[in-house]
Amino acid sequence: MSLIVQKFGGTSVGTIERIEAVADKVTEFRRQGHDIVVAVSAMSGETNRLIGLAHELQSQPTPRELDVLISTGEQVTIALLSMALNKRGCPARSFTGSQVKILTDSAHNKARIKEIDGSNIRAELKRGRVVVVAGFQGSDEDGNITTLGRGGSDTTAVALAAALKADECQIYTDVDGVYTTDPRVVERARRLEHITFEEMLEMASLGSKVLQIRAVEFAGKYNVPLRVLHSFQDGPGTLISLEESLEMESPAISGIAFTRDEAKLSILGVPDTPGIAYRILGPISDANIEVDVIVQNAAADKTNDITFTVSRGDMVKAEAILHETAKELGAREVVTDAKIAKVSIVGVGMRSHAGVASKMFKTLADISTNIQLITTSEIKISVVIDENFLELAVRALHTAFDLDDTSSESA
Amino acid sequence: MSLIVQKFGGTSVGTIERIEAVADKVTEFRRQGHDIVVAVSAMSGETNRLIGLAHELQSQPTPRELDVLISTGEQVTIALLSMALNKRGCPARSFTGSQVKILTDSAHNKARIKEIDGSNIRAELKRGRVVVVAGFQGSDEDGNITTLGRGGSDTTAVALAAALKADECQIYTDVDGVYTTDPRVVERARRLEHITFEEMLEMASLGSKVLQIRAVEFAGKYNVPLRVLHSFQDGPGTLISLEESLEMESPAISGIAFTRDEAKLSILGVPDTPGIAYRILGPISDANIEVDVIVQNAAADKTNDITFTVSRGDMVKAEAILHETAKELGAREVVTDAKIAKVSIVGVGMRSHAGVASKMFKTLADISTNIQLITTSEIKISVVIDENFLELAVRALHTAFDLDDTSSESA
Repeated sequence: MSLIVQKFGGTSVGTIERIEAVADKVTEFRRQGHDIVVAVSAMSGETNRLIGLAHELQSQPTPRELDVLISTGEQVTIALLSMALNKRGCPARSFTGSQVKILTDSAHNKARIKEIDGSNIRAELKRGRVVVVAGFQGSDEDGNITTLGRGGSDTTAVALAAALKADECQIYTDVDGVYTTDPRVVERARRLEHITFEEMLEMASLGSKVLQIRAVEFAGKYNVPLRVLHSFQDGPGTLISLEESLEMESPAISGIAFTRDEAKLSILGVPDTPGIAYRILGPISDANIEVDVIVQNAAADKTNDITFTVSRGDMVKAEAILHETAKELGAREVVTDAKIAKVSIVGVGMRSHAGVASKMFKTLADISTNIQLITTSEIKISVVIDENFLELAVRALHTAFDLDDTSSESA
Repeated sequence: MSLIVQKFGGTSVGTIERIEAVADKVTEFRRQGHDIVVAVSAMSGETNRLIGLAHELQSQPTPRELDVLISTGEQVTIALLSMALNKRGCPARSFTGSQVKILTDSAHNKARIKEIDGSNIRAELKRGRVVVVAGFQGSDEDGNITTLGRGGSDTTAVALAAALKADECQIYTDVDGVYTTDPRVVERARRLEHITFEEMLEMASLGSKVLQIRAVEFAGKYNVPLRVLHSFQDGPGTLISLEESLEMESPAISGIAFTRDEAKLSILGVPDTPGIAYRILGPISDANIEVDVIVQNAAADKTNDITFTVSRGDMVKAEAILHETAKELGAREVVTDAKIAKVSIVGVGMRSHAGVASKMFKTLADISTNIQLITTSEIKISVVIDENFLELAVRALHTAFDLDDTSSESA
């Protein structure tokens, strides 16, 4: 018998019919003898409806009161799911974040969990009940209701699993697992049986559609095995854990992530002096523009070129700032390019497999794709290329690194 | 400077526009220097929407979870009203029932308030804030969310006023006060400046459209001055308090209540033995039928006639039970009449004014109205008459007891 924390998101509990389906699933797990704690989101659309009401009143709603307001969304779901479970003869009891209690700091709308008192939940589990907890919310030391920010229900589930020392934290979603890459781009993309926390974090651009990055970080920190599963289809999903794959011949690369919503900006011919990167990127950051890739190349002539990428929606704003900076620094030129894409290969295996980078570059060369930028980390290599080559590049890399699903051929 | 508890019901906070109007009103009171605690209901329609969701799942929803569900209705309102107040520069803070904390028993869906800890509210008032409290809800000793049942927001307001020793509890509603009788029946009905708790309770049939009877009882018990006011019109409303009117020549009668939704049942010729009333009314009560008027007339021939009234909707059920009882007791006959109405004159003044009853009977005789039943209490005389004579009777009594509004004539 295991203790399992299960998380169902807004779409999975979006209608009474879906809540009934979730109740069927939970009841089945309970019948198998597991102790079950369920964390749920608000019914899909509900949080936006509530925020809409607040915005009719205030463009910047009082943060404390916004939390009081939107936390009702999950409270509705826990009550309804508990009813659905009770109706099935599966005894259940709901808990709000305050009732658990999930202690957070006082940063309304984006609170962080400080501590979870598991005693209330353990007592209910001992009485044979399924415990249904409102995700996304908690309360601070003064009893004020707080919320964890968007996607916080994943974090709640992982934090509960960590506090209760659960055997597994199952995140139910609308995909049946984590894939080697986006199946819409590569038909032969394969569901991964297993992936490490580190890899999952580096696959952010793929993974964020599946799991909140913050929850993955949390799970990694407390070593909570996470499993991504489909809400309404059976299947093993993808296990995300600390351990590397136990297969002897595990592949060097676990997956290929990519994004096309970035833009590239370069400032050319700036003096090669200490602090120059800060003088260029400081104003960008001050304007609340997030920078992704940063590459600096000191040229031989004592001047410097710095290139970075931002969200495509921020490009115009960033370009204006960069022109100001260029004037101040006496830079030669500012160049921008919105038609770029970033492709990353990710895998803990590349630590022990030599030649991964050169294999990547050769694969791209073979399809005549010019590499504009390269950045690397321990378990990831990213390149920026012309947007038009993106799909071709991802497919070629998927094949080159032996990620293609060949099950239909061998069958 | 006074401490005032104000209560706004579901219609008064039914839209964002109305919440803004309530915020205007509260802000104005605050500017006058009063300490303000506001108790609010769910936005109109919201509680029924939530109950509807529950009923899609369970015909008899788990009582504990139903409370978790429907208590979100008031939580939404407190957040929105607090935002609206903050926007007006009127610092405000919301509190759920649990946050206050309003301690209740554990009778889910119809809990009773045991105690209110006023310390959280007092601390906020000291900081100069308006405190906005969710009506209708509390929590039990184990921290389970409870609700007080329909209309419980009035009770919350009165209980808060009692706990905080407020100077006045103002109930905002869709009428501008308590009237001498229903203005739809008597054009010259007058708004009462003042009425006692006792009178208000006896005027239940009028008053229940304005105030929950339970809240009036509560206010009387703790001597909390209540004021009924219109949500969106200015005016002094009606004060309900312990003290009788200070006017020297206060009228004998304060108001005329009436109801046409009752039916009369008589069982004739039952043995005149001890316990007979219980044998007749016990089965009615066991069937959850509420009995209003009961009149027993011991006849000379050692048999007895008992007549009582029930809600008209319960008549068929009550009649069937009564026929069973009649058979068992060997009663002569069961007679029923659905076409009746009850008219009551109410006033603490009748204690010291002789001849009130005979004046009532003479007035009815003058308009040829036959009296079918008479019951009396300390401050009320009720008669049951033919439904067709109801309006005529109420108008005649209103004039006879000097209740008519003559202000338009003297103006």
